[in-house]
Amino acid sequence: GAYLAFRRLWRMMQTPVLLCVVACLAACAGYLLDWATRMFIVFRETLVPSNQLDEARPLAYACVCFSFVMASAMLTQFLCPLAAGGGVPEMKTVLSGSINPALLSPLLVVVKLSGLVLAVAAGLSVGKEGPLIHVSCALAELVMAMPAFRYIRVNAPHRLEILTCACAAGVAASFGSAFGATLFSVEITSTCYIVSGLARAFATATVVALIYWCWGTEVISGLFSDNVSQGMPFAPTDLLLWALLGVLCGLVGWAFVSAISGVSQWRNRITRSALGPKVQRGRRLMICALFTTLVIPLSYWELRYFERWSTTGQKALVDHLFAPRVLGVSYELALFVPIKALAILLSVTQPLPVGLFAPVFLLGAAFGRLFGEVARYANLSMGLMHLTFQPWEFAVIGAAALSGSITRAVSTAIIVFEMSGENCLRLPLGLAVLIAHTIASRFTKGAYDSLVDTNSAPYLPTLPPQAYLVEVESIMVPAANLPFLSLSTTYSAASRLLRQHTPTTCAVIPVVQTVTDMVLVGAVLRRDLELAV
Amino acid sequence: GAYLAFRRLWRMMQTPVLLCVVACLAACAGYLLDWATRMFIVFRETLVPSNQLDEARPLAYACVCFSFVMASAMLTQFLCPLAAGGGVPEMKTVLSGSINPALLSPLLVVVKLSGLVLAVAAGLSVGKEGPLIHVSCALAELVMAMPAFRYIRVNAPHRLEILTCACAAGVAASFGSAFGATLFSVEITSTCYIVSGLARAFATATVVALIYWCWGTEVISGLFSDNVSQGMPFAPTDLLLWALLGVLCGLVGWAFVSAISGVSQWRNRITRSALGPKVQRGRRLMICALFTTLVIPLSYWELRYFERWSTTGQKALVDHLFAPRVLGVSYELALFVPIKALAILLSVTQPLPVGLFAPVFLLGAAFGRLFGEVARYANLSMGLMHLTFQPWEFAVIGAAALSGSITRAVSTAIIVFEMSGENCLRLPLGLAVLIAHTIASRFTKGAYDSLVDTNSAPYLPTLPPQAYLVEVESIMVPAANLPFLSLSTTYSAASRLLRQHTPTTCAVIPVVQTVTDMVLVGAVLRRDLELAV
Repeated sequence: GAYLAFRRLWRMMQTPVLLCVVACLAACAGYLLDWATRMFIVFRETLVPSNQLDEARPLAYACVCFSFVMASAMLTQFLCPLAAGGGVPEMKTVLSGSINPALLSPLLVVVKLSGLVLAVAAGLSVGKEGPLIHVSCALAELVMAMPAFRYIRVNAPHRLEILTCACAAGVAASFGSAFGATLFSVEITSTCYIVSGLARAFATATVVALIYWCWGTEVISGLFSDNVSQGMPFAPTDLLLWALLGVLCGLVGWAFVSAISGVSQWRNRITRSALGPKVQRGRRLMICALFTTLVIPLSYWELRYFERWSTTGQKALVDHLFAPRVLGVSYELALFVPIKALAILLSVTQPLPVGLFAPVFLLGAAFGRLFGEVARYANLSMGLMHLTFQPWEFAVIGAAALSGSITRAVSTAIIVFEMSGENCLRLPLGLAVLIAHTIASRFTKGAYDSLVDTNSAPYLPTLPPQAYLVEVESIMVPAANLPFLSLSTTYSAASRLLRQHTPTTCAVIPVVQTVTDMVLVGAVLRRDLELAV
Repeated sequence: GAYLAFRRLWRMMQTPVLLCVVACLAACAGYLLDWATRMFIVFRETLVPSNQLDEARPLAYACVCFSFVMASAMLTQFLCPLAAGGGVPEMKTVLSGSINPALLSPLLVVVKLSGLVLAVAAGLSVGKEGPLIHVSCALAELVMAMPAFRYIRVNAPHRLEILTCACAAGVAASFGSAFGATLFSVEITSTCYIVSGLARAFATATVVALIYWCWGTEVISGLFSDNVSQGMPFAPTDLLLWALLGVLCGLVGWAFVSAISGVSQWRNRITRSALGPKVQRGRRLMICALFTTLVIPLSYWELRYFERWSTTGQKALVDHLFAPRVLGVSYELALFVPIKALAILLSVTQPLPVGLFAPVFLLGAAFGRLFGEVARYANLSMGLMHLTFQPWEFAVIGAAALSGSITRAVSTAIIVFEMSGENCLRLPLGLAVLIAHTIASRFTKGAYDSLVDTNSAPYLPTLPPQAYLVEVESIMVPAANLPFLSLSTTYSAASRLLRQHTPTTCAVIPVVQTVTDMVLVGAVLRRDLELAV
């Protein structure tokens, strides 16, 4: 009971846990690399101070550098020659399916990192992105070798997916960026990319970027003196609130997609093509008339209370919701969320040429703003938490998270980041969108995918996540109903068995040690058995 | 001669030209949609002013909205019922290979756009992203139907790739963002994405974003009042200079990848595995020693002239190159570019665990800075052009463009955009990286791919672009050398033919009408002919 429940929970959680562990290890590898490099450069500076190069003999500098490089070369050539090279070409071959265990060994991790540190400290003009990608993959492989993750390891496509995520983590560990890193890893390691894995790769890279951000940028020497540190810092409460907003948006997204899908199914049943084109057309027009009649009071309400912002489409209203000034927790804002949700539901399900992104974005903005204003009110009046983010920033995050959970596209985070141009919102956006995406994915498909289903378009379905949790026990045929042989079965018993069972039900016949202990020792093809009998 | 040369040039240029046309059409569709929506809302306001809703009877408002929606519904149901719905599910099925011509007809474009305008003007809570994606695809299909693009149209995978790019253009037209739009289109329309098409999709979306930026943001009412307009505006000269920097970085990238690939090949020949592990190891160590001896004077020079910035790895040097203060066109900066290039070449080709991104990024920063300083000098001293971008901004652009052209990953633009946090650099980065990528792709593979080749890793090669330009004429066997039958061939001639030609050279034998006119009427399998004779 309890053990089974735990096992089911673990089956569901093992991939996220594994990816978090991989992200942590990649971040640690990146940190260790930078720290060791700095230590070695300090060591070199004590031997040959670079601000006294004129006085110091150039030969001393040359000797130190030369010995560093040769140490790196010896280490590589004697201990693990496979560690030589950048790592990207190697990972490209690994991800194309030909996994060479020697390429992902623990020894390689040690040699690759220390060789790189020596090479950088020697003043060679070299980078760390390839080695970090390679090391991240090797670390992921190591973690997967643990018994807890054996189900992932034996599942070859899943194992490759985890390695892809590890590549993204490696790139994120060398650049400290999340969105670009994921794509960079896709571009340099894949030829044909399974898009469903993108969210996981994004998540892994975002965890790495988050860890780096928590450590502070002065710890990590990226390529830039990162502007992130000049942006707004955040309190742990902010992190919790982003996550909570993500969870809520995920739940709202789930409810919304289910509602759209339900109304669309009802609409399609009413206007099914068996009725003939004329009746179908009439009923479609009637649905438009009915839904519009229901929407008009809602849009009238919206127009009266938000008249200043609603007249020129939805843009001005979004601007209002994203305005830096304080709006306060108002009756209108709280009412706006359910009313708008109903209006969207009745608008986008009409058989008209309409999209759903912009209104959902607006709904998310209102929801996030409400959330932000409530958090600010709680903060001010009760002093429950320490907040650095403003309500309008929660509005931006909410808009991205809700659109992300409904369209099931994590790139919503990039779109909103690009459009807002606010660098300090990068991580919150990524985090909230990923959480909303994950929560919503547990329950339903995305809005576009579920519309593919309800419109019965010619498209191959994907298996629901529940399919991966089916236990063998629930679909197996009990051994008692199956033909089997034991090691002591006689020829006559075997030929009787062959006569009793048709070839279709038992092409392969299991062989057990004895009839009492039922230890499986092998199997025999029916064809071979027939020849033998 | 001239015609053939033109045809070859056209074959090479037709895809970029087509994508630019598609991007322009998508941008125009987006603009038209916004303009028409505004017009209709103004029209609605003259009928029922929303600031006098209290005085005006709610019924008037309801009537106007109702009639707008019903007009939209009638238009859709009577003229083109396929135009109903968002468009994303439809495009998902089209891109999965089942192209329904009715889904991409000109009538659909008109109905979809006008239906959407009426629905938005009626105050329905609907978005435009789905319809714009659908309309962009339909427009792309229309352009491809032109005789000039028939080679693309008949090539099914290429046609699908163009439609994928059109989806990206549609998303970019609705959001005005480039990076996020590309990814969003990938996420919502693909299951398994051919990564090689990503650069083209990025390019199409960037052209749309560029057109929008040129028009100014007040023209397009996106979701946000875009912060881009608050960023730095740019002069047409800036645009030309970004493009020129992109071209130069592409050429440098090409030369650099060729050099790395050449040196790696030489290294692999010297240390080939046929020599046995011991000799191989010795030679590898010797190569490290040799290259390091050559690099040390270069890194010594760098350290002496840039001592203040080089001591703590490459970060401080990058910061120096990206510093907003004026550096001026200096002797050191000009010398730094070739010296650093040589140092990188001799560092990353050593058989050590080293990457190449960071040094290449630094080289690009130096190259861009030099370019920017020269442009600034020319601007100041000769007043040749009007410039709004600063040298440090060119340094950032150069760094992204050179890394993009060497790694052949357009996501470099996103990484640099994320790391710099400068919103005004978004378009320049995208443009320069795409141009550098395109130029470099004409000549060589990316550094990682060419290392896969030189290391002969087990990976499937991609065809070089020249392979697509091979004419049938240059590889065909002339008809005179081939066995063939005419309709009047006798049994004895046929059996002679069978004896003269081995089964391997002619498994299928063509049949012509008469020996003189050589009109192909069919073919016959050798096997069948043997049975008949």
